[in-house]
Amino acid sequence: MKNYKITAEYDGTKYNGWQRQGNTKNTIAERFENVLSRMCGKDVEVFASGRTDAGVHADEQTANFKCDTLMTEPEIQDYLNKYLPEDIRVTSIEEVDMRFHSRLNAVSKTYEYTIATEKPDVFIRKYVYFANRKPDIEKMKKAAMLITGKHDFRGFSSLGRTKKSTVRTVNFIEIEEEEGLIKIRINGDGFLYNMVRIIAGTLYDIGCDALDESVIEEIFEEKIRERAGVTLPASGLRLVKVYY
Amino acid sequence: MKNYKITAEYDGTKYNGWQRQGNTKNTIAERFENVLSRMCGKDVEVFASGRTDAGVHADEQTANFKCDTLMTEPEIQDYLNKYLPEDIRVTSIEEVDMRFHSRLNAVSKTYEYTIATEKPDVFIRKYVYFANRKPDIEKMKKAAMLITGKHDFRGFSSLGRTKKSTVRTVNFIEIEEEEGLIKIRINGDGFLYNMVRIIAGTLYDIGCDALDESVIEEIFEEKIRERAGVTLPASGLRLVKVYY
Repeated sequence: MKNYKITAEYDGTKYNGWQRQGNTKNTIAERFENVLSRMCGKDVEVFASGRTDAGVHADEQTANFKCDTLMTEPEIQDYLNKYLPEDIRVTSIEEVDMRFHSRLNAVSKTYEYTIATEKPDVFIRKYVYFANRKPDIEKMKKAAMLITGKHDFRGFSSLGRTKKSTVRTVNFIEIEEEEGLIKIRINGDGFLYNMVRIIAGTLYDIGCDALDESVIEEIFEEKIRERAGVTLPASGLRLVKVYY
Repeated sequence: MKNYKITAEYDGTKYNGWQRQGNTKNTIAERFENVLSRMCGKDVEVFASGRTDAGVHADEQTANFKCDTLMTEPEIQDYLNKYLPEDIRVTSIEEVDMRFHSRLNAVSKTYEYTIATEKPDVFIRKYVYFANRKPDIEKMKKAAMLITGKHDFRGFSSLGRTKKSTVRTVNFIEIEEEEGLIKIRINGDGFLYNMVRIIAGTLYDIGCDALDESVIEEIFEEKIRERAGVTLPASGLRLVKVYY
């Protein structure tokens, strides 16, 4: 038995996210497991670095699976790319230690949220969120510094009740604006459900003067999701890279 | 009355090309004319630099239209971008001399055909043609030099019988390969129906040893379309720029 780590990119537009949840159909993991199970001649389970939600894209999602095969890594990659749909592509593959686990060994992840403040380039329209208000980028950057660090992010998530820890560390948030596109890049050791989209929505609302930056301290203290900004649409979000 | 020149980009995937032909519905020109007629309060006709076929994309198509309006150029651009669908975007607008005509005044045009020889980046998959054979680029470049120049391109078109001249000048053909993508960029003073796609298909077939480069001389002499390579799919083609 061997353990393989893959990196894959996908256009998440038409999928219900990465992971099978109960009876959820049409997931990206399902596509991988169907092809890999056929390749290996038995059921194969694929473990990703984490779920991406419905409609969210990835430049470099990572995942691992165990399989007994005589195929070389390039052969496995070719097989996957041949049978996976055209909106999912494996960009690299390597054999790793049997103990490697994509989620448990991940140290940090970078996500990027893209807001278009003008009608976007038609060729990227499905990968951005088109919002018509133009925010003050400096205000967004200042507020982002208040979010950076180790905090209880429960108020920045759409989680229901949970006993699990909701403390996470955001290592950095970078915001840049170029040609009508605002990119919010956020790196952290882990992210709660909808956390990036709510942080992006809160920063955007602060930049547009719809919220005051003092709200951030309040959300950390009171942990009430309703105080934060909107959950921006999935289309603008992509998982950029997972670090090990 | 004023004459306006616009440049526009579009994702041609779901349109029957630029131009209304007889009863052809769902054209890009139709979308422009609907919005402009509403804006101007009377029927407006839009003249493009040339037709792009069904499924062909554009980075900078140019067009002109005449209209009596008190709106400024930026206001017209905003109006168009607001009411045109998200796969069509006006990137610039300027008032021009009343005698300016997008097609008649065009000096040359550049098209680009993109062939992916490996499974393409999922985010550009709709804008390339995925072919699995890997051609010899040097052979393609050598053959491209034989196509460059002033020739009767009838054999490189899908035209029916016509009495119009089929002589055109191809100013240059550039071919480059990078990360599994072959880009064939071709500039000429005018292009016949399907001409770029047939030239790209012929060069590709020559690069794959499915045709010999001697076929080019034969096509110019005999003007028989069947001698040339396949008409590559529309998805890989884009109108890059029109020069005046």
